[in-house]
Amino acid sequence: MLVGAPFDGTTSFLPGTRMAPNRIREASVGLETYSPFLDRSLEEIRLADLGDLELPFGNVSEALEMIEAACRSIVDRGTKLILLGGEHLVTLPAVRACHSGYPDLAVVQFDAHADLRADYMGEHDSHATVMRRIGEVVGSDSIFQLGIRSGTREEFAYGRAFSGIFQEDLATGVRKTRELLGERPVYVTVDIDVVDPGFAPGTGTPEPGGCRPQELFQALWALEGLNIVGFDVVEVNPLVDSGVVTSILAAKIVREAAILMGASDEETRATFGGAETFGR
Amino acid sequence: MLVGAPFDGTTSFLPGTRMAPNRIREASVGLETYSPFLDRSLEEIRLADLGDLELPFGNVSEALEMIEAACRSIVDRGTKLILLGGEHLVTLPAVRACHSGYPDLAVVQFDAHADLRADYMGEHDSHATVMRRIGEVVGSDSIFQLGIRSGTREEFAYGRAFSGIFQEDLATGVRKTRELLGERPVYVTVDIDVVDPGFAPGTGTPEPGGCRPQELFQALWALEGLNIVGFDVVEVNPLVDSGVVTSILAAKIVREAAILMGASDEETRATFGGAETFGR
Amino acid sequence: MLVGAPFDGTTSFLPGTRMAPNRIREASVGLETYSPFLDRSLEEIRLADLGDLELPFGNVSEALEMIEAACRSIVDRGTKLILLGGEHLVTLPAVRACHSGYPDLAVVQFDAHADLRADYMGEHDSHATVMRRIGEVVGSDSIFQLGIRSGTREEFAYGRAFSGIFQEDLATGVRKTRELLGERPVYVTVDIDVVDPGFAPGTGTPEPGGCRPQELFQALWALEGLNIVGFDVVEVNPLVDSGVVTSILAAKIVREAAILMGASDEETRATFGGAETFGR
Amino acid sequence: MLVGAPFDGTTSFLPGTRMAPNRIREASVGLETYSPFLDRSLEEIRLADLGDLELPFGNVSEALEMIEAACRSIVDRGTKLILLGGEHLVTLPAVRACHSGYPDLAVVQFDAHADLRADYMGEHDSHATVMRRIGEVVGSDSIFQLGIRSGTREEFAYGRAFSGIFQEDLATGVRKTRELLGERPVYVTVDIDVVDPGFAPGTGTPEPGGCRPQELFQALWALEGLNIVGFDVVEVNPLVDSGVVTSILAAKIVREAAILMGASDEETRATFGGAETFGR
Amino acid sequence: MLVGAPFDGTTSFLPGTRMAPNRIREASVGLETYSPFLDRSLEEIRLADLGDLELPFGNVSEALEMIEAACRSIVDRGTKLILLGGEHLVTLPAVRACHSGYPDLAVVQFDAHADLRADYMGEHDSHATVMRRIGEVVGSDSIFQLGIRSGTREEFAYGRAFSGIFQEDLATGVRKTRELLGERPVYVTVDIDVVDPGFAPGTGTPEPGGCRPQELFQALWALEGLNIVGFDVVEVNPLVDSGVVTSILAAKIVREAAILMGASDEETRATFGGAETFGR
Amino acid sequence: MLVGAPFDGTTSFLPGTRMAPNRIREASVGLETYSPFLDRSLEEIRLADLGDLELPFGNVSEALEMIEAACRSIVDRGTKLILLGGEHLVTLPAVRACHSGYPDLAVVQFDAHADLRADYMGEHDSHATVMRRIGEVVGSDSIFQLGIRSGTREEFAYGRAFSGIFQEDLATGVRKTRELLGERPVYVTVDIDVVDPGFAPGTGTPEPGGCRPQELFQALWALEGLNIVGFDVVEVNPLVDSGVVTSILAAKIVREAAILMGASDEETRATFGGAETFGR
Repeated sequence: MLVGAPFDGTTSFLPGTRMAPNRIREASVGLETYSPFLDRSLEEIRLADLGDLELPFGNVSEALEMIEAACRSIVDRGTKLILLGGEHLVTLPAVRACHSGYPDLAVVQFDAHADLRADYMGEHDSHATVMRRIGEVVGSDSIFQLGIRSGTREEFAYGRAFSGIFQEDLATGVRKTRELLGERPVYVTVDIDVVDPGFAPGTGTPEPGGCRPQELFQALWALEGLNIVGFDVVEVNPLVDSGVVTSILAAKIVREAAILMGASDEETRATFGGAETFGR
Repeated sequence: MLVGAPFDGTTSFLPGTRMAPNRIREASVGLETYSPFLDRSLEEIRLADLGDLELPFGNVSEALEMIEAACRSIVDRGTKLILLGGEHLVTLPAVRACHSGYPDLAVVQFDAHADLRADYMGEHDSHATVMRRIGEVVGSDSIFQLGIRSGTREEFAYGRAFSGIFQEDLATGVRKTRELLGERPVYVTVDIDVVDPGFAPGTGTPEPGGCRPQELFQALWALEGLNIVGFDVVEVNPLVDSGVVTSILAAKIVREAAILMGASDEETRATFGGAETFGR
Repeated sequence: MLVGAPFDGTTSFLPGTRMAPNRIREASVGLETYSPFLDRSLEEIRLADLGDLELPFGNVSEALEMIEAACRSIVDRGTKLILLGGEHLVTLPAVRACHSGYPDLAVVQFDAHADLRADYMGEHDSHATVMRRIGEVVGSDSIFQLGIRSGTREEFAYGRAFSGIFQEDLATGVRKTRELLGERPVYVTVDIDVVDPGFAPGTGTPEPGGCRPQELFQALWALEGLNIVGFDVVEVNPLVDSGVVTSILAAKIVREAAILMGASDEETRATFGGAETFGR
Repeated sequence: MLVGAPFDGTTSFLPGTRMAPNRIREASVGLETYSPFLDRSLEEIRLADLGDLELPFGNVSEALEMIEAACRSIVDRGTKLILLGGEHLVTLPAVRACHSGYPDLAVVQFDAHADLRADYMGEHDSHATVMRRIGEVVGSDSIFQLGIRSGTREEFAYGRAFSGIFQEDLATGVRKTRELLGERPVYVTVDIDVVDPGFAPGTGTPEPGGCRPQELFQALWALEGLNIVGFDVVEVNPLVDSGVVTSILAAKIVREAAILMGASDEETRATFGGAETFGR
Repeated sequence: MLVGAPFDGTTSFLPGTRMAPNRIREASVGLETYSPFLDRSLEEIRLADLGDLELPFGNVSEALEMIEAACRSIVDRGTKLILLGGEHLVTLPAVRACHSGYPDLAVVQFDAHADLRADYMGEHDSHATVMRRIGEVVGSDSIFQLGIRSGTREEFAYGRAFSGIFQEDLATGVRKTRELLGERPVYVTVDIDVVDPGFAPGTGTPEPGGCRPQELFQALWALEGLNIVGFDVVEVNPLVDSGVVTSILAAKIVREAAILMGASDEETRATFGGAETFGR
Repeated sequence: MLVGAPFDGTTSFLPGTRMAPNRIREASVGLETYSPFLDRSLEEIRLADLGDLELPFGNVSEALEMIEAACRSIVDRGTKLILLGGEHLVTLPAVRACHSGYPDLAVVQFDAHADLRADYMGEHDSHATVMRRIGEVVGSDSIFQLGIRSGTREEFAYGRAFSGIFQEDLATGVRKTRELLGERPVYVTVDIDVVDPGFAPGTGTPEPGGCRPQELFQALWALEGLNIVGFDVVEVNPLVDSGVVTSILAAKIVREAAILMGASDEETRATFGGAETFGR
């Protein structure tokens, strides 16, 4: 089940990711429902779109609780969770919800930033600390970070200590990650800024030097067969996008992820990018 | 003294006012320092620019405390305060600071929105409740609201109960306000959305049907002679602006305000829009 | 009942009005549901949003038939019709549908362009001929055109022959129109370019020299008490908008119209701009 | 004859007016060729478009000489000159060219800025000194400045000394100007920033507080019957425009001016906005 | 001979390609006329620019006939055809025109989308069916599709059946294509979306995961020596471009193609990007 | 020491680089101060920011003299120079200043354009002739040009004659350059358009087919250990940027360069991107 979490309350540079869920849905109209690589179509799986949560402005903890409650209700139904951010902090309550249903949960993160600070400008919960917090939920050694190219010296030291794949190229990293994951249930979080700002200008803290979209797709396809129980794409900021370039990239990521996840779970109904809601 | 408060933590629609102080300063380069109407120049007064405060993200109460402390230190020096928002909630700590120095303080608000809600989506402190909170500081009958064209039925009822000038045209409203204010110290807050979005597209909650820039300038000029001890311009959002149109409007408002206020207080040094920092 | 017709197949300058329905809904989040002038709220009426029609690309006649069928089903239920364009040609099938239910139908048009050509570049049905075609449905003397400031010499001659109010200022024109309309059922079409491009830059054929948003609102309010059975706002083009300025203007026009129309018809359910779908 | 001068070499704030001639021509496609107010069409006059001059970058004096030579060749043919800027300094060589053919030439300027500085940042020829230089050509008392709302104290003093109509509203100013001009040949220069930035955001030094487009059109129409031998529209900057709003305003100004001027001179061929080059 | 076909009547997502021919010409000013790789300059060949066709809006079949007639007149002169779209459907009449002159014509397509549907939303002629229609003209086995990464399952099955190079990387595909083409006359169509949206954001249906501009240039250069009789670049949409990035990419593609084609045909006069019309 | 030179007086296509220094500083807030590759932070070196020079408009030679004087004063203090352009011509006075202090100076240029013309449209000093002029200062064989992909035939012949590395890929070129440079003092100039316009759309003459940001960073890192005494990043144009994508790329280039240069010189104070001026 797909749900939007239009939250950007701790964004540190360019706010606006709250506009992402609507624009990603809008952009999905421009895509086909069929994935040539996976040779499967959104129309062949079932994906329900619950719309966006109504979150309060200026109250981080309450917003996180509402997101967790929504995700937990999805997990409790035994269906797959797809979350549209919002900023990266929305991943924390989503992981908490998935972890409650899958205690052995591992987290795979595609990101430019380590997001491993102990705190950020005095704040405990922030898009810059989110992976540290998530490590406190699932265990630091259950986080697999790919594509990281920005952080403090402390974050890099911390990240390297817990993950041998930190900072490797995506193809190598994802191969090693797969081996380490085995049969564990997995939550995958894609911070759109893992891709270079040239391809994804609509994001809150663009970090030059990232991968190409195709490299990210290949990394995602390489996860096929894993038991992915939760997925999100975060940090898409339509306010600073170039047209719909970043939104449509996110929409395609969601399409591929939904098909990947749906490949092992057929219980949902297709509405995202599907013929019944979109123009194609 | 001028200071920037790049805070947009409770914005409900389009975030980004945190970018305003830098862009307003940048836009000020395109203006003359001389005001033909007031027949006085920024170069003839002294206006120090303290730069921007460094505020935490995701912690509303701490950000407000930091703004209040900064404003209080300016008020305590006995100098005039000019604040660049940020969203409208920054006016609350600024008024608190001025009120501590001027217990008889009145507040004149130019705005499209009443901002008089008791709370907003469960939150006590918000850009939609800020004038209600300010009323709790200076007394509801010490607030003079001009240009209001949006709110809930409750806000309109509340506003009309306390202010006979509510919703009148700016020229009439400002004339009556002046009479009521007498010699009281005054804080003036300009929410840029009092102007029609056609002239000020760069704002967080644009409300069609507002005044022209010239009407606002005339209203400001009509305040000449009042003891204006604090002033702000808020809700400028460069992320959704058309070029620098809204930023330059805000810069001109600040120029006129600084000259108006400086006319009775010569203690500051000119740096905003002045020859020493800008290109003209 | 509200329905979107994302059609821009005969646009002659800047295409993109097909994106309007989604962006107008998105922008409605930034508005209150309460109209201070009408002293009534969207939450107090019932307005159902049927979403957007799925129209074919490159086949004008089929698209028009689909729009007419959708509008006719609404009219046949006896409920009020609110249509979100799309370009101005969508008004033709909507008027046809209303005319089938209300044979005495009159049409009030707010527009910069006369749209009265007999044909346009060889085409019979076009956004430049739409009012001529509508005149063939309801009778040329049942069209009341307000705000017209652009057309060919022939269109101006034609328009003046049939309408004494053509080209007058909105306030005068709407007053005379009301007198002439009496108790007749009315379809109101608002081409957003009646407003000056400064306030509504997001439109397909911007025509400098138009009215202010407030003048348009006053003209709409002056229609209170009429039996408005159909309403549309057309020619909003988000692809060339300045942020959401034009979309939010259209959303406010729809809000005022829905409340105006709903004032005499309470059968619908509020979802546009209402608390259940939008953030405020 | 229409010619473009894509020069912005002395622009002090936002450069880019060199892109204006092409974008004004492009925008003219969105307009009708018929002027309802003047009841005459571009198709009924003859207006040749010579295209754009190829000017060197970084050499002000040579660029000015090339513009003057081009304008002089047009004046020498006895035809009317219409110049598309570029920045305001292009008016200087155009006036020189017209003055050589019409020694009794007067200049009518619509502008936000006085442009009367003796020099600007050490430079003699600049868009901020252009009217001072023009005064040295035609005599300071042959300049009629309308709409001025920005300048230094010295410029305002200088302007008031020579022109009683300085700073009056456009309607009054243009009426007085007409009386003073009598039968003299006239050069009219329109700096697009005379209009408020809300309507003309695409300009190099936007100055809030200007007139509406309709006020400018009325002022231009009030010049009917004068012997206008040269005309320009300058300071349109497409790089910072909102879509094509400012370009289309300039195109409409050119259309009205061409019809106004052509009304007394029928020797040219219509290509600007005319059916043979544009889509309508 | 170069001609523009500003047609976007069947565009399914973001319309606006009609603006492309003018903006591509404008952008060509920013390029050199000399191609370092081909070691030849536009100034050394002769390329006439016929300007843009005036096409009706809302009548697909008539627009296609006009484009075909224009292309046929160029082919009939025995000169090379370069077409600036517009959307991809403009390739159909251009291929028809070339096929009438060269019955053995083969078509090489660079594209993200297969465009092989039998029909699209009920329409026979559409930018989504154009290659299927072209296959009906030249034979399905005379189409060589490169870079395809989007389509329906049916399109992929159809494409693979007729073309072994379908979906291979550009370098491999173009090498095999060359071998298969031999001495046949060739029409080359470049849908700009073959390049990743990061490099070409200005397009109607951006498809993430495409090639880099340099890969496309290398593929084009690898066609040197072929008898290219027609060429187009389509689907450039300036309304959603980031500045002029996509337009300038298209202009460079046209420059390289013109030099490639001109290498075997010297009958035309250089005006596109050449010294006589552009600033450099 | 860092200083801004907001000069764009000879720009030939899209002007606006004068806005770059402020926007690059603004964008630096979005970056960390720590470089993972260099394993060193801006906070560990000392980098003073002198702000922007105030340069005259329309007087190229005077602007160049002012830039040279400012750079010379920095060189004379024995500190490293980092210059923020502005257009590429600002490199000429900077190199002159460095050459006066380091007579054995070599220049390494990353650029899409050779900039080797003898003159450009009659002008001796221009952004298109700047490297030819610099060759006259340091000797043509002391210039090392990398990434060049645009120029006239004459420029390519000239460039190849003096530099064997001309036109090679960055990795190879920078390796050979290092060997040739030995212990010589080096000035490095980065024209942002060496990167493909997809990653750096905000530039004056975008040239499709460039490198990725990561390739440029690798080339810069490969310069570690050289005695870099001067550095600039030029041709960033915020007026045509996609959000802040190009500004943030430039900011990261400056960060890496400052750390590289500071690695051998610790005399400066950190303010660019450092904690004391920016939000992080």
